[in-house]
Amino acid sequence: MGKFKITIAYDGSRFSGWQTQLNATSIQELIESAFQIALRSKTTVIASGRTDAGVHARGQVAHFEAPSGTNLDLLFRSLNGILPHDIRILKVEPAADNFHARYNATSKEYHYHIHLDWALDPFSRLYTYHHPYSLDLIALEKACSYFVGTHDFSSFANEASKGSAAKNPIRTLYRLEMHTQPGGVRLEFEGDGFLYKMVRNITGTLIAIGRGKMSVEDLEALFKAKDRRKASPAAPPQGLFLMKVNYNESSSKDVTCKRPSSTLSSNCG
Amino acid sequence: MGKFKITIAYDGSRFSGWQTQLNATSIQELIESAFQIALRSKTTVIASGRTDAGVHARGQVAHFEAPSGTNLDLLFRSLNGILPHDIRILKVEPAADNFHARYNATSKEYHYHIHLDWALDPFSRLYTYHHPYSLDLIALEKACSYFVGTHDFSSFANEASKGSAAKNPIRTLYRLEMHTQPGGVRLEFEGDGFLYKMVRNITGTLIAIGRGKMSVEDLEALFKAKDRRKASPAAPPQGLFLMKVNYNESSSKDVTCKRPSSTLSSNCG
Repeated sequence: MGKFKITIAYDGSRFSGWQTQLNATSIQELIESAFQIALRSKTTVIASGRTDAGVHARGQVAHFEAPSGTNLDLLFRSLNGILPHDIRILKVEPAADNFHARYNATSKEYHYHIHLDWALDPFSRLYTYHHPYSLDLIALEKACSYFVGTHDFSSFANEASKGSAAKNPIRTLYRLEMHTQPGGVRLEFEGDGFLYKMVRNITGTLIAIGRGKMSVEDLEALFKAKDRRKASPAAPPQGLFLMKVNYNESSSKDVTCKRPSSTLSSNCG
Repeated sequence: MGKFKITIAYDGSRFSGWQTQLNATSIQELIESAFQIALRSKTTVIASGRTDAGVHARGQVAHFEAPSGTNLDLLFRSLNGILPHDIRILKVEPAADNFHARYNATSKEYHYHIHLDWALDPFSRLYTYHHPYSLDLIALEKACSYFVGTHDFSSFANEASKGSAAKNPIRTLYRLEMHTQPGGVRLEFEGDGFLYKMVRNITGTLIAIGRGKMSVEDLEALFKAKDRRKASPAAPPQGLFLMKVNYNESSSKDVTCKRPSSTLSSNCG
């Protein structure tokens, strides 16, 4: 058996999130069932982390095990042929034997889109948070830099699901930038890891600062409180995209293979 | 009473098309019912032309009559507040008393998106025709120029709905260009008017030429046949966008009004 890495994009609109659960359609469940058809054997797919209901991904990463000689080009095509069109496999590639999509991730990048204009393009409605109120973007941008660094993010983490172990709430945010884009802004997050709902909770607090409901100076006390209830409500899921999961170079096997001419995003990218 | 012009964008995915019909949700019906709530009176909204089920618009134009003193900024906000998010009013403006959205249109512009890459971004699946086969783009582009000019387009027109009057099949295509874009191509059409399914039928024939199923030289006989059954199947609706409807300058009233600061696409654009 060999270890393999897949890169996945999905429109989270109609799903209950990444993780398989009872009575709801999850992304993991559909991908594992596509593997079962394509490889004719039950395959577990472990992602870098779960995403919540309605959250999108352009670069989720997962690993799985399969026979070493598996034809990856055929697998790539089969999975995309079986999966619904709101889930796409972007890449299938060999990985080191000890590769683990969650534990080996060195950082993750998320984007959060906020549309501020009164009128929202009908084609963007599922992919941005429509917040048609004026925001003080100078205050918001100033607040971004306050979150960067290593902190106890307890005030920005919801409790994970029942029964999960207590977690270390210290995380390092390498980057939190605000970029203006047509009709609004995009927040770019990069960190070594994110607590449950941390990106959406930070975004909710940044919006509260932009609206003048709290000030940048209030952040120090908010961090110190270590109490989720003191922070603002989470921003809604549809604005959030998991863009990229980063790993050390050594976690991929160095292989040479031919790119099929008909495919821009093949398994040998 | 005064005459007014509205510009509308819609995601056609879940609708039966522009035109009101029994047992299906149309865009016209939802817009007219929003007007009835906003203006407290039954209002007929006449578009530049209907679009079919699944076809999108970024610049559909329609006209309606309302009391001359109607507050257009309030109407703009009310309509967008009432309408579902897949239909957006981009502009409401005064028009000349004799303005007619259909009869005064001097030309219309359509875009048709074809995605050729094997992998399709899940966020584009409702807005492009996924056709993952290699196309001879040189032949396709050469064929485009053959359609430009004044022709009898009978071979590229489906019969309109039962009971509609026989139509003059002569139309002038001012422009038909192929542009490459990430993952595929976009066809840009501009003409004085389009017969029923004409854009999708021409696109279907262009794709057949790109696939090598027919040649540019076959087009002359195809035009001469004046028989829809000789041409290729229509390309599917989801790749098609009505981009813009053009009118002579004189059809709009020249008014000066202040753009609300919170609104990029206001009624006074």
